[in-house]
Amino acid sequence: MEDKLNINNINTLYDFAQKIYPICRSITGNGVRLTLKIIQEILPELKIHEVKTGTKCFDWEIPKEWNITNAYVKDPSGKKIIDFKENNLHIVGYSIPVNEKIPLSELQKYLHSLKEMPHAIPYLTSYYNQTWGFCLKHCERKKLLDGDYEVVIDSSLKDGSLTYGELIIPGKSQKEIFLSTYICHPSMGNNETSGPCVTTYLAKWLSSRDNYYTYRIIFVPETIGAVAYLSKNLKTMQKNTYAGFQITCVGDDNSYTLVTSRKANTVADKSAKHILDNYVDDYKLYDFSYRGSDERQYSCPRVDLPICSIMRTKYGDYKEYHTSLDDINFISANGLNGAYNIYKNVLIALEENKIYIATNFCEPQLGKRNLRDNLGSQKSFDLKYKIISDVLAYADGKNDLIDIANLSKVSIINILETVKTLLSHKLLKEYKPSLYSKIKRLVFR
Amino acid sequence: MEDKLNINNINTLYDFAQKIYPICRSITGNGVRLTLKIIQEILPELKIHEVKTGTKCFDWEIPKEWNITNAYVKDPSGKKIIDFKENNLHIVGYSIPVNEKIPLSELQKYLHSLKEMPHAIPYLTSYYNQTWGFCLKHCERKKLLDGDYEVVIDSSLKDGSLTYGELIIPGKSQKEIFLSTYICHPSMGNNETSGPCVTTYLAKWLSSRDNYYTYRIIFVPETIGAVAYLSKNLKTMQKNTYAGFQITCVGDDNSYTLVTSRKANTVADKSAKHILDNYVDDYKLYDFSYRGSDERQYSCPRVDLPICSIMRTKYGDYKEYHTSLDDINFISANGLNGAYNIYKNVLIALEENKIYIATNFCEPQLGKRNLRDNLGSQKSFDLKYKIISDVLAYADGKNDLIDIANLSKVSIINILETVKTLLSHKLLKEYKPSLYSKIKRLVFR
Amino acid sequence: MEDKLNINNINTLYDFAQKIYPICRSITGNGVRLTLKIIQEILPELKIHEVKTGTKCFDWEIPKEWNITNAYVKDPSGKKIIDFKENNLHIVGYSIPVNEKIPLSELQKYLHSLKEMPHAIPYLTSYYNQTWGFCLKHCERKKLLDGDYEVVIDSSLKDGSLTYGELIIPGKSQKEIFLSTYICHPSMGNNETSGPCVTTYLAKWLSSRDNYYTYRIIFVPETIGAVAYLSKNLKTMQKNTYAGFQITCVGDDNSYTLVTSRKANTVADKSAKHILDNYVDDYKLYDFSYRGSDERQYSCPRVDLPICSIMRTKYGDYKEYHTSLDDINFISANGLNGAYNIYKNVLIALEENKIYIATNFCEPQLGKRNLRDNLGSQKSFDLKYKIISDVLAYADGKNDLIDIANLSKVSIINILETVKTLLSHKLLKEYKPSLYSKIKRLVFR
Repeated sequence: MEDKLNINNINTLYDFAQKIYPICRSITGNGVRLTLKIIQEILPELKIHEVKTGTKCFDWEIPKEWNITNAYVKDPSGKKIIDFKENNLHIVGYSIPVNEKIPLSELQKYLHSLKEMPHAIPYLTSYYNQTWGFCLKHCERKKLLDGDYEVVIDSSLKDGSLTYGELIIPGKSQKEIFLSTYICHPSMGNNETSGPCVTTYLAKWLSSRDNYYTYRIIFVPETIGAVAYLSKNLKTMQKNTYAGFQITCVGDDNSYTLVTSRKANTVADKSAKHILDNYVDDYKLYDFSYRGSDERQYSCPRVDLPICSIMRTKYGDYKEYHTSLDDINFISANGLNGAYNIYKNVLIALEENKIYIATNFCEPQLGKRNLRDNLGSQKSFDLKYKIISDVLAYADGKNDLIDIANLSKVSIINILETVKTLLSHKLLKEYKPSLYSKIKRLVFR
Repeated sequence: MEDKLNINNINTLYDFAQKIYPICRSITGNGVRLTLKIIQEILPELKIHEVKTGTKCFDWEIPKEWNITNAYVKDPSGKKIIDFKENNLHIVGYSIPVNEKIPLSELQKYLHSLKEMPHAIPYLTSYYNQTWGFCLKHCERKKLLDGDYEVVIDSSLKDGSLTYGELIIPGKSQKEIFLSTYICHPSMGNNETSGPCVTTYLAKWLSSRDNYYTYRIIFVPETIGAVAYLSKNLKTMQKNTYAGFQITCVGDDNSYTLVTSRKANTVADKSAKHILDNYVDDYKLYDFSYRGSDERQYSCPRVDLPICSIMRTKYGDYKEYHTSLDDINFISANGLNGAYNIYKNVLIALEENKIYIATNFCEPQLGKRNLRDNLGSQKSFDLKYKIISDVLAYADGKNDLIDIANLSKVSIINILETVKTLLSHKLLKEYKPSLYSKIKRLVFR
Repeated sequence: MEDKLNINNINTLYDFAQKIYPICRSITGNGVRLTLKIIQEILPELKIHEVKTGTKCFDWEIPKEWNITNAYVKDPSGKKIIDFKENNLHIVGYSIPVNEKIPLSELQKYLHSLKEMPHAIPYLTSYYNQTWGFCLKHCERKKLLDGDYEVVIDSSLKDGSLTYGELIIPGKSQKEIFLSTYICHPSMGNNETSGPCVTTYLAKWLSSRDNYYTYRIIFVPETIGAVAYLSKNLKTMQKNTYAGFQITCVGDDNSYTLVTSRKANTVADKSAKHILDNYVDDYKLYDFSYRGSDERQYSCPRVDLPICSIMRTKYGDYKEYHTSLDDINFISANGLNGAYNIYKNVLIALEENKIYIATNFCEPQLGKRNLRDNLGSQKSFDLKYKIISDVLAYADGKNDLIDIANLSKVSIINILETVKTLLSHKLLKEYKPSLYSKIKRLVFR
């Protein structure tokens, strides 16, 4: 990585991850609210919104609010063999209240485990079909003996609301960059404690600087939250969104992944590819048919926002995915910081990606401006001079700065200093059509 | 092959091939007429046309009609060493009548054999230069002893006509799909008993169903027949032809081949590639510079019809080509049926290749329509759900159904059922610009 | 190489190279003038221009004129250890006059050598910063003993002029093909005795024939000469230039190189690629970010001429580059002749690259015009027929002749004869829109 944009303390992100990891989140309920409160400690301007049960959102309807305080199963000897308090993945999300004694054969219908991963508790939900269930390790399940089991689920499913967080950071332009992450998963690491962590600290960094673009940053429950948010904000977002990113699975320390937008041709894709190409040894490039998170909503045909998603290891691409093995140890400070820095560079690239035009006919004489060594014809390679020369050679009023960096085979981050220098020497100007015709007229008169 | 569209009996096509294989065909004459009569038994609506000798067809003129009943060469001992009745390839096509006794040295000028393939009788013709000749195995030729040989060719070359067959199957639309094959080759298997066989049964299948497109299906002598047909029908065909296929070399059991249209960008190419990509492990893709059959006429610059050609092993790509070794055993029931099924799928793809648009903003809630398992977050892969999701994600009023299938990495054949389901749930509509603006207006009001 | 366009004598180019190699050239001075005089012996029409010191050329100013007659360093024992007369690379270009005795420690500041190439004298210049210096082999430098050294540089740096040569060869069209090479390097072989040699003989060949395009051929000092030339001729060149080539590094016998124009999409690139693809086994293809010679001026954004550069081994791609090891033996008769022939073919390709249209509907009957063997269906491959057939198949009024050659996978040089034949048979016409509609009308009446 050529450029280090590290946050103050190497553990800042991971410490924050540890703080929100234990909370039992779902698409509604107090777990979401508590998570957003903790995020508000870092982002005081974050607004928390509630959308009432029953509200229509396009084809969907906000479901009842679900909360849970306790749940367990006791075996015939009275021993707790499954305990929600030990791991909140033990309960199928949105399980209805239960308090009964049933034989093993009946209980089995409500148990879920993974034969092929006997030491993992799977993660399951049943938001839109009222039922209940417990998830457990397959190795434990195999030990269960016949007899009557006590089943207790101390949950509630009632009219209430869906909760989400929203932060708008105004910039010079009304054009928006959109960041979205989700806060509906219980205790898992990569998918999904990492997304809210990285997004929180990106928002903090963005709040601390003068931005050209306005930033719209949301923390929503996946799917229903994204749908609800769009149903309220679609017109504005369709009008203003310049680029956007779905931030998920950004915590582990393995290779990077890019899932492109539907047509893979937005400036979001362009910037993401450019930064990954320059800062990452290798990454997996997936087209939109591999999508799986809220870009499903943001980029669907009639919404059509320019969204892509940079991840570390993608949901579904690792065996620990959606199980208790994707825990807080599956992610790391390095993993979170790496993703944070990549997104930071991607946003800097977007902020700085203007179109310039060289003011001179032919190359200017760099030597007289001390921009080039005066001893000519040397055999050694001079990267600084090459960048100056390439910026001037490609600044034709059509290439943007990412194009120029791509053509010069360097990162845009590495040419920003050169652009400033050339602007100060008036060898480069920001391109505006009217300016160009003026230059042309002056020269040829 | 995912989808089996087999004809009733596995031997139907091969039995038919055996029926027409023995006939001595040329570009004119009774062999063509007899072949078309046999095809008429399967396709009673087939119209047989005659074009008189001397008729001008663009740069060409219909030649005299050629017929032959017998031909042989007897060696000095009176033994028949070459006999047309044993194999009609022995005679150079369009040989003029001969009845004379000549020494071996003179005879040699009229003999043709292949040194490099001593056991094959080559196939030769001399349509536009009046001469005569015999073809034989090189191993037999080498045995010929000095002496006088009796040469008899009982043929006639007289004013008459060129014969071709034509079948128009009207569809809902005036737009036409064009199928062309040729019926001018004597007894060879892949090139060319296979083309008329597969085309006959495709026509039979098309006649039995309600088609969107009108089908124009012709059985013509190669080159002069295609030129003659075009000279009569060019204006209509240029106006109406949506896609077309030259059907030849579709009988052997080896790999498939696609020769693209001139610019390789027609819907015929698109459909052919899509089906081959999905149903064939591997195939040879040739550009138009490898053309060799009647697409030479159909796709020449000033005719410019959107024609490509799917083959099994291409003319010229197998050593048996244009010799007696490309016989009825060179082709097989499997070979013919495979090509038949590929073409059938290509035509289904064209028939079904409409443009749709998803009606909803965001993904619709599939669970409430029983289109998705209600237990969320499962790790197992659900192809049916993936296809539903992809169709909705890519149905943007621009992608056609083949595009969507390509993006989803499945065959269009595999998504037709899903499209029907989504249409019945009104989650998808056929795209018409007027409809689209109506939907838009309703939603945003 | 399919086509031999050799110059009269295999040594012509190399002999000429030996003639101009020894001269001490720089960006101004008598070395340039003498070189141009020798070129004038071959090209009597060459005009020699002088641009006065101080003349403004865009961002640049013509520097003082530099001349040198002698330069040496004597060691404490009075032995000449560096002598300009032995190798003119010993002197840093544009060194000011010196005559003094200095200790080794002081002398070292003015010495230049290459540690990593101890047996090479480096080539250095200091055009825009007045100083002096000597270049020597590192192995010699290491032998220097302490003591006082006599340093003499008998040079002059005075108001004068910059000298360049220009040859305009008028063609049928005002559209121009531009050839540029440079004559400012002292005694080195590939970079740069080869460029002026090859350019001189290309100009001689062009002068001897009737050309469609007008040729603008210049011999200028690198950078400042190109800038000066453009500052005088920019408007005309921007209006008229159809294609152009920077000719440099065309003398060694190794692989070829193409540095494309900025967008790699000009007809100059197209023609260069086409000829290299057909006549060279393998070559290095570089984009414009690898540029390094006067295309830096010709193709900069606001000049934007369609220039590319075909080389043998590119500047910077060989270790001998810009040292005494790139000497007259580094280049060869074969190396120069090969590059000459490639450029000749590239120019022929441009001269002949017209757009044609086949006049016939369908293929014409070639047999009746003796353009095809009358014995049909033969298995042997007939390249001549294939070319005729491909030209007719692709001559659609859109493809130019290079396109057709590319589609047919042969060189344009190999289809010129066929084009002539087809034109004489009126099977092909040069495409003009008005003609096309006339043909169309006649046929359909």
